Amino acid sequence: MRTPPGVGSEAFAAAIAEFEQAVGKEWVFTSEEDLDLYRDDFSPFLGEPEERWAAAAVAPTTVEEVQSIVRAANRHQVPLYPISTGRNLGYGGSAPAYSGCVVVDLKRMNRILEVSEDNASCLVEPGVSYFDLYRHIEERGLKVWVDVPDPGWGSLVGNALDRGGGYTRPQFRNHFDAHCGLEVVLPNGELLRTGMGALPGAKTWQQYKSGFGPWIDGLFSQSCYGIVTKMGFWLMPRPEAYLSATVLAGRRDDLYALVQALNHLENGGITNGMPDLGSPLLGIQSIAEYARSMQDLAQPAEDPELLALREQAATGAHEPLEAYGRRTGLAYWTFTLKFYGPAGVVRAQWEHSKEQFSIIPGVRFREDPLIRLPLTEEQKLSVHWPDFGIPTLNMFSIGARSMSNANPTHGHMWFSPIIPRSAAAVFEANEVFAAAAREFDLPVLRFSLPSCYWERAFIFIFGFPVTTDIKTNQKNRAAFHKLIDTAAAHGWGEYRTAPAFQDAVMSVYSFNHHALLRFHETVKDAIDPNGILSPGRYGIWLRHLRARRDREAG
Amino acid sequence: MRTPPGVGSEAFAAAIAEFEQAVGKEWVFTSEEDLDLYRDDFSPFLGEPEERWAAAAVAPTTVEEVQSIVRAANRHQVPLYPISTGRNLGYGGSAPAYSGCVVVDLKRMNRILEVSEDNASCLVEPGVSYFDLYRHIEERGLKVWVDVPDPGWGSLVGNALDRGGGYTRPQFRNHFDAHCGLEVVLPNGELLRTGMGALPGAKTWQQYKSGFGPWIDGLFSQSCYGIVTKMGFWLMPRPEAYLSATVLAGRRDDLYALVQALNHLENGGITNGMPDLGSPLLGIQSIAEYARSMQDLAQPAEDPELLALREQAATGAHEPLEAYGRRTGLAYWTFTLKFYGPAGVVRAQWEHSKEQFSIIPGVRFREDPLIRLPLTEEQKLSVHWPDFGIPTLNMFSIGARSMSNANPTHGHMWFSPIIPRSAAAVFEANEVFAAAAREFDLPVLRFSLPSCYWERAFIFIFGFPVTTDIKTNQKNRAAFHKLIDTAAAHGWGEYRTAPAFQDAVMSVYSFNHHALLRFHETVKDAIDPNGILSPGRYGIWLRHLRARRDREAG
Repeated sequence: MRTPPGVGSEAFAAAIAEFEQAVGKEWVFTSEEDLDLYRDDFSPFLGEPEERWAAAAVAPTTVEEVQSIVRAANRHQVPLYPISTGRNLGYGGSAPAYSGCVVVDLKRMNRILEVSEDNASCLVEPGVSYFDLYRHIEERGLKVWVDVPDPGWGSLVGNALDRGGGYTRPQFRNHFDAHCGLEVVLPNGELLRTGMGALPGAKTWQQYKSGFGPWIDGLFSQSCYGIVTKMGFWLMPRPEAYLSATVLAGRRDDLYALVQALNHLENGGITNGMPDLGSPLLGIQSIAEYARSMQDLAQPAEDPELLALREQAATGAHEPLEAYGRRTGLAYWTFTLKFYGPAGVVRAQWEHSKEQFSIIPGVRFREDPLIRLPLTEEQKLSVHWPDFGIPTLNMFSIGARSMSNANPTHGHMWFSPIIPRSAAAVFEANEVFAAAAREFDLPVLRFSLPSCYWERAFIFIFGFPVTTDIKTNQKNRAAFHKLIDTAAAHGWGEYRTAPAFQDAVMSVYSFNHHALLRFHETVKDAIDPNGILSPGRYGIWLRHLRARRDREAG
Repeated sequence: MRTPPGVGSEAFAAAIAEFEQAVGKEWVFTSEEDLDLYRDDFSPFLGEPEERWAAAAVAPTTVEEVQSIVRAANRHQVPLYPISTGRNLGYGGSAPAYSGCVVVDLKRMNRILEVSEDNASCLVEPGVSYFDLYRHIEERGLKVWVDVPDPGWGSLVGNALDRGGGYTRPQFRNHFDAHCGLEVVLPNGELLRTGMGALPGAKTWQQYKSGFGPWIDGLFSQSCYGIVTKMGFWLMPRPEAYLSATVLAGRRDDLYALVQALNHLENGGITNGMPDLGSPLLGIQSIAEYARSMQDLAQPAEDPELLALREQAATGAHEPLEAYGRRTGLAYWTFTLKFYGPAGVVRAQWEHSKEQFSIIPGVRFREDPLIRLPLTEEQKLSVHWPDFGIPTLNMFSIGARSMSNANPTHGHMWFSPIIPRSAAAVFEANEVFAAAAREFDLPVLRFSLPSCYWERAFIFIFGFPVTTDIKTNQKNRAAFHKLIDTAAAHGWGEYRTAPAFQDAVMSVYSFNHHALLRFHETVKDAIDPNGILSPGRYGIWLRHLRARRDREAG
């Protein structure tokens, strides 16, 4: 049995015994076989000493058990690393950010404590998955939707705390913003409720978010400040209808007017699903097209002439590619808008949207049939489920072994910078990242389009392969680090990253000599004096470990 | 010159000298005449020793000056109390929460640093008022709206940090939620930027809210943790049209179906302005009706029969009042919905809304003419300006001296509990508060309707008069305290309160032996070790003052 750094085997054994007393022997895991399950299968350190490992895992089922674990950890200075379900592959999975932590696995805390149709809200424990809540709602025929990420196997609480996103209306697809009220076990074992939950017997814990006095909820997202044991969410009332419709434009420079119109429509609440961008001419599928083509894993080969024109376009000669588009009907850009609401409203919203886009010469429109909800079983066969609040694992088929993909990668790590919501930023970011790819000897990405998970900002999401070859992984990690710095030099920062890169990303958020990080550290030292909770998560280290980090960095 | 508690006159003189060096002699105020301007004119302690007083005031004009002031305050242990413009009358005004503080008056920091039409956002300093920003936008013809509170003379930053609200779409009328990015001078004088602003040269400070790692912005609202020197906001793109329409229902028990339908429509994004409730039969005007009747200060006297029937209804006999309504056409309830968007969309939204309300027997509808925006000068004469993002001081005419109000009160203090978004809660709260008014010898409020500033919750806002008679004020303060406890016993908490009651309100947010307050105090002690910033604000006291508070609390 390996012990956490700086913890003697006797102290660790004592801590394990106390964990066993708290939760029962069968829910404390120390064998290598059991702990293998907590490895990050997508770790970019696979097979290297830096791969994060857990010294043990413990799976409580009540808040009191969580408190007992935290108190025992304080007594023996054993570091803990809570996970909800540990399903955020590509962002760290279930492995701790700091090797030697005891993983606190909250999967057994899977109670759905309330779902209110009238208030369109729920209160859940961290082990509740999107599938769990979806089934609960379906079984009862409640007319509310959960906004789900893609894939949907993870925990609502875990995804929201990692600040993940989904596909429906903006205020729901931002999963952390959609929350209302937390219950947290603090690093000292104390139980705290936020928002109106701090008032005993509160009637509005899931109805009013910020409570009275400083609003501390944000502190517990992407954080090492507490273990969230209950979390409320606002749900989306099931809409009457759904309309998906696509704007098609033929020229490269149409992107300027397209993004401007899109922003106006989205910021004005006129289109309200996640906009979905594609470029048939550049060979970039939108998410909806991915979903539609999933059954058709053997993609048709593309016209060699088109491939050649794409290469030309990459060097600045866009006109031949545009001409190819005019001849064949392939669009340069596709913007798929989605509308949720009463049938008459969504039709009017699309009509108005068309007017806005009509300033673009030659713009075309394609409208899917309006869907009256709920979906029929037949309709379910041809849609992207997360658009309808239905969790699915279909996303995994994208990288799967197939006729056209004989050697799928082992896994991936996500590089995900936020850039401005403008065409200029999209073009600039593509130039910058293409140059960086050449410089760092990465496969040069063909033109990339950003995602629109967040209002007002674009997000680029690049999947770096994780392989079983150490040399390749080392090269990719080095390139990842360089991309973080390249992005930062252009004013773009990542919104989330895997533990392997959390120090590096936090280090570029360096305004005024890292004032924000130093603030985090001051808070951390105050509320976690023994330094037992999630050391290193999002680059925040406990007092006694900061010296080590600074030494290693310097 | 009075000095702050525990600060000797020499130390205070030295601090004043350093303030003068930082900002210039003419911007440090120590004369009684000048300091009178920082008194809370609505203080419930008028003429009593407990009235809060400032030992001095200082008005910096740059971030560096704010930092110099904070550093000097640390050196001399002088408590500071920052205000943006100090206009939140009824919630404390410009007076400090703790007597003897030096008010840091940020009114001179009134730069509008950016307004982006494309991103529909702005970045402003704390001295920028709603009028300032509105004029800036109008002068440039930008197609964005600022959501304004009523009245609109205050600061965007101050109102948002106090978690104030307005009238347009939900994501804008919640002023703190509408912010994107902060710059803060911490209690130790360090400058920090939150969100993407922590990345030097960030391109998305006003485009993406939460940045990387723990999201700390909420900490600085209703707080004593820092002085906000810049704040970004998302603005509302100017809508194409506005429609206001009213649902009228005749029976007391129709409120159940009305609220349920309203919630469904608002949570579904189908109605998107602040709903506005009234009851002609009970004599409760909606906000829109107030606005319309403002010129007509001499209200017509009400029918004595109606007044008598209202008394009966208060004892449970609703049917005679309902019958009066059927005979005269007066509605029991009016729900005015507001719709912002393209003309076709808002018409479709109202059509759908009518269908939802049509389950109520005998329901009627009244539709105002659709307004195509911007407003004409003539249209401006007959509307409630804040619905259109136009700041105004008209609200003050409500309590003004008039034919029917010969003796207006001196001021008021707001008691503002949050209750659930249900008819049951409205009826229950009315019973509870009426009983409390009788018990505490307050004027028994006729039936009260809540406001809908916040999504998913109702808020009751009762204005307690502040008079120039000390005995009356004492009685009202005692009643206010009792109402806080009465509300808490029913699971309802205030969302905001004046300094006079901040300890009392915070004390009912007591889950797990005041775990939340103890957490706040731990953070406070860590980031403000010399205890110089806003002692007592929202019930959070510095380490060296907590003993005093606890002793006084008994």
